[in-house]
Amino acid sequence: RGEEMAKLTQLIDNEVFRAYATYTAIVLLKMMLMSLITAYFRKTRKAFANPEDTTLFGKGESAKKFLRTDPDVERVRRGHLNDLENIVPFVGIGLLYALCGPTLSTALLHFRIFTGARILHTFAYLIPLPQPGRGLSWAVGYCVTFSMAYEVLKTAWLL
Amino acid sequence: RGEEMAKLTQLIDNEVFRAYATYTAIVLLKMMLMSLITAYFRKTRKAFANPEDTTLFGKGESAKKFLRTDPDVERVRRGHLNDLENIVPFVGIGLLYALCGPTLSTALLHFRIFTGARILHTFAYLIPLPQPGRGLSWAVGYCVTFSMAYEVLKTAWLL
Amino acid sequence: RGEEMAKLTQLIDNEVFRAYATYTAIVLLKMMLMSLITAYFRKTRKAFANPEDTTLFGKGESAKKFLRTDPDVERVRRGHLNDLENIVPFVGIGLLYALCGPTLSTALLHFRIFTGARILHTFAYLIPLPQPGRGLSWAVGYCVTFSMAYEVLKTAWLL
Repeated sequence: RGEEMAKLTQLIDNEVFRAYATYTAIVLLKMMLMSLITAYFRKTRKAFANPEDTTLFGKGESAKKFLRTDPDVERVRRGHLNDLENIVPFVGIGLLYALCGPTLSTALLHFRIFTGARILHTFAYLIPLPQPGRGLSWAVGYCVTFSMAYEVLKTAWLL
Repeated sequence: RGEEMAKLTQLIDNEVFRAYATYTAIVLLKMMLMSLITAYFRKTRKAFANPEDTTLFGKGESAKKFLRTDPDVERVRRGHLNDLENIVPFVGIGLLYALCGPTLSTALLHFRIFTGARILHTFAYLIPLPQPGRGLSWAVGYCVTFSMAYEVLKTAWLL
Repeated sequence: RGEEMAKLTQLIDNEVFRAYATYTAIVLLKMMLMSLITAYFRKTRKAFANPEDTTLFGKGESAKKFLRTDPDVERVRRGHLNDLENIVPFVGIGLLYALCGPTLSTALLHFRIFTGARILHTFAYLIPLPQPGRGLSWAVGYCVTFSMAYEVLKTAWLL
């Protein structure tokens, strides 16, 4: 039984699953980067959400004025939330899709387009690019996830 | 080894796993739908979060007035965030639960009640229904996830 | 084929995977707890986001005054969102990491430190502790997830 189990953990040797693992790690790391960018803008713009975070910049009344929202900070936070709303479905549906046995080339196509679209979306949000730049990059990622969900439902359907 | 691996990707042939894949795809698609509803309300209510999104409706000062919050938009966004807060635990714990080897009928019971409760929750939030409609549908989904987590911890416990 | 499939669902018998399942269930339950804490503060502080939630406390004008934000409620909500932003990458990357075949002791080290750091983070946020308490606990969890992502990319890399 131990040997049997050892094999099971080698799911990672399957090429489609390796591709899924690579792109999922990349988009999740990209999403995690948004926390660092938020922290950077909070510090340079001196705009904090918690009283205990302002103590580096002063005490009492002089610290209170740093308890505020800043357009740049809010922009990064909207980008971060949009990542959560779109990357969570990709990670969940992508895992099921990878287990549905697509060909490696089709799977790579889905993962690459999604990852590229989300990286573009972040640049479009942070620079910011004029619309429909951000809207289009969002829509491309959305459609890729939808296409994978269709494949999952077609293969796994058991209601 | 290639043959061994090919088999491993057929996790999707397991009936409980197929049920998990079906309901997870459905609830994640339902969550993704919230983005489209938000976009619809932002456009019809003319209430945007980014200056670059308002340029379709005017320039300069006339565009600035569309940079605002709208109660309908905020309502959909709260529903979307509530989905994230509840569907993420379902997807994560549900995957582990499906791998714990429950009977198909018990698993289907969990997945069906959760999915039904979250669809009701969305209607209760968007119509909106008087309380405790939304509260109850939220609580039902919460308890289903809790029940699966209990099963996972009972089966897998290794601290 | 049925027998083959039965075995596949015994991924949960692998010790590293059992450890992953245990800690993932714990951090997701901890995240779910934030919903109950938010509900508790909303009720005791009488600060609601939806008109239909205020009807227990009065009608018409007297209910409207409970449609407001409260610093304690907002604090719990920020903690909840921070959980989403950090626990989602842990669950996704942790699953891939567990399938990469790390030794049980290394895997347990990662899972335990992450889980401990996130529990500390919640206490640091809700009490609240003076900085850098919350910042450090956040950074520790972040670094653990980063370390697992590095391992996943090293093992699975297929771009």
